[in-house]
Amino acid sequence: MPLDTADLVDRLLAGQRRALARALSTVEDGDDEALRAIVAALHPRTGGSHLIGLTGSPGVGKSTLTSAVTQAMRNRGLTVAVLAVDPSSPFSGGALLGDRVRMADHAVDDGVYIRSMATRGHLGGLSWATPHALLVLEAAGFDVVIVETVGVGQAEVEIASIADSTVVVQAPGMGDAVQAAKAGIMEIADIHVVNKADRDGAQRTLRDIRGMLDMAPPGEWTPMVLATTAATGEGVEQLVEGLLAHRRWSQESGRHLRHRRAAARVQVREILLAQVRRRMARLDEGEALEAVVAAVATRELDPYTAADRLLAEIG
Amino acid sequence: MPLDTADLVDRLLAGQRRALARALSTVEDGDDEALRAIVAALHPRTGGSHLIGLTGSPGVGKSTLTSAVTQAMRNRGLTVAVLAVDPSSPFSGGALLGDRVRMADHAVDDGVYIRSMATRGHLGGLSWATPHALLVLEAAGFDVVIVETVGVGQAEVEIASIADSTVVVQAPGMGDAVQAAKAGIMEIADIHVVNKADRDGAQRTLRDIRGMLDMAPPGEWTPMVLATTAATGEGVEQLVEGLLAHRRWSQESGRHLRHRRAAARVQVREILLAQVRRRMARLDEGEALEAVVAAVATRELDPYTAADRLLAEIG
Repeated sequence: MPLDTADLVDRLLAGQRRALARALSTVEDGDDEALRAIVAALHPRTGGSHLIGLTGSPGVGKSTLTSAVTQAMRNRGLTVAVLAVDPSSPFSGGALLGDRVRMADHAVDDGVYIRSMATRGHLGGLSWATPHALLVLEAAGFDVVIVETVGVGQAEVEIASIADSTVVVQAPGMGDAVQAAKAGIMEIADIHVVNKADRDGAQRTLRDIRGMLDMAPPGEWTPMVLATTAATGEGVEQLVEGLLAHRRWSQESGRHLRHRRAAARVQVREILLAQVRRRMARLDEGEALEAVVAAVATRELDPYTAADRLLAEIG
Repeated sequence: MPLDTADLVDRLLAGQRRALARALSTVEDGDDEALRAIVAALHPRTGGSHLIGLTGSPGVGKSTLTSAVTQAMRNRGLTVAVLAVDPSSPFSGGALLGDRVRMADHAVDDGVYIRSMATRGHLGGLSWATPHALLVLEAAGFDVVIVETVGVGQAEVEIASIADSTVVVQAPGMGDAVQAAKAGIMEIADIHVVNKADRDGAQRTLRDIRGMLDMAPPGEWTPMVLATTAATGEGVEQLVEGLLAHRRWSQESGRHLRHRRAAARVQVREILLAQVRRRMARLDEGEALEAVVAAVATRELDPYTAADRLLAEIG
């Protein structure tokens, strides 16, 4: 491991916030070698946090709800990190601005850390860096890590494969539950939340969700359906209780370990695929490819045998 | 090589049309092992045909033009195979129907072979099977193989990387040359054809193409701009002369070999990628993946070291 990476890891584990910020920047933007060194050093220190995915369409009040949940967790003495995965353009500066706005509520609290991350380079999904950033936040020792995903579709389904507990947030009048069901996000919820529950139509949205759940085949966990008004704090305590109850159930039922294993499978496969892509890119620069291609062009070698030879180079 | 594949290859090389049809079906639908055996056996017999790509938007008259070019090549004593890559749904039966309609003009001519191929499974591009089908047709000894691609976009650019000579067909009033330039298909043409040249606006379309070419940086080959009316045969002789002239220039200038080498590079990389994907799929069924994933989940192994171990299994 490079000396400065070892130093960074030491300072991170000693609780230095600046080291945490730098480690997150490194896994987000850094070169592969630094990323790899950080992951290898921090990985043994992870596995202890409660990873919460909080997801839903734009406008349902996810940021306010995340802030309220963070405060309620803090009131229980738990430290909280928030990773806001933001699909905004890397050129908009939206992520940085978002951090500052979000920090305002918890600015003087050392037990809260908030970070935004753009989803650049990973169209419609979580950024490649998200699992690595979670690993850094877990190693930094936060009791709770909330991943908030904006947008609809792929990101929601991906977050459920990473998070220990997944909260799907809806709001009255923000499109109906049938739409959510079609998008496949009903199935991923451990807890359904209808936020902005003081608005007209909240009861109907709650009823729709419950009706949909009644039709679903029973699973090992029966999803909760809760109403919150994050702006006033109404229902937030129940949501936090629900999250902690889900966490306890997960650990006692063995679901936690199975789920973490599934997440590890996804992560290892992603890294493997990235390694293969990188080695293939390196092939393009080397002489082995040109040599077999020339032989294929002159018909001395058939393309399958050529591919076999290159495969041996990649492995 | 399986005995029946060896027999198939023998009969194909002996000129049996039924063996040709079966070999094409095998490379289109067959299992990997048969595909591989056929490619390995036939590859040394290839490289002699003039591969012509003929492409353009729907409605410009590509089928009629292909048929006219085929007849003109036959008049010169050259044998011709046509591979029509059809983006129609595999469920529509469009490809098969197309074959029958196309065959009508050349039904009694043993020196012409026509085959349609759906682009299933390879969205917006040429089918994975196309380069393999070309290899079969080359090995079968056709002097000329015309690949006709329907649709716009990716397929056109892909065909130029495979074909020795690429013809881009436009028609008056079928969208202007600026659109074609935007789609990136102007650059791939060795020969531009304005078909349906008896229609209003043909002169303007010709002028637009020439104007666009005047603005392009000069290359080693100056693209021809020709007018045809395929339905009457007008201009078809000039197109065939142009194709043969391009062929001669390619071979004399060394461009032919460079281009074939580039095509081989693309093909070898595609096969390599397919092999990697297959081995990764096989990983999912084996025990090595589960073993490392379990070790990652319990933090005995970090995900990068885990990926390295699996990479060794793949290679």
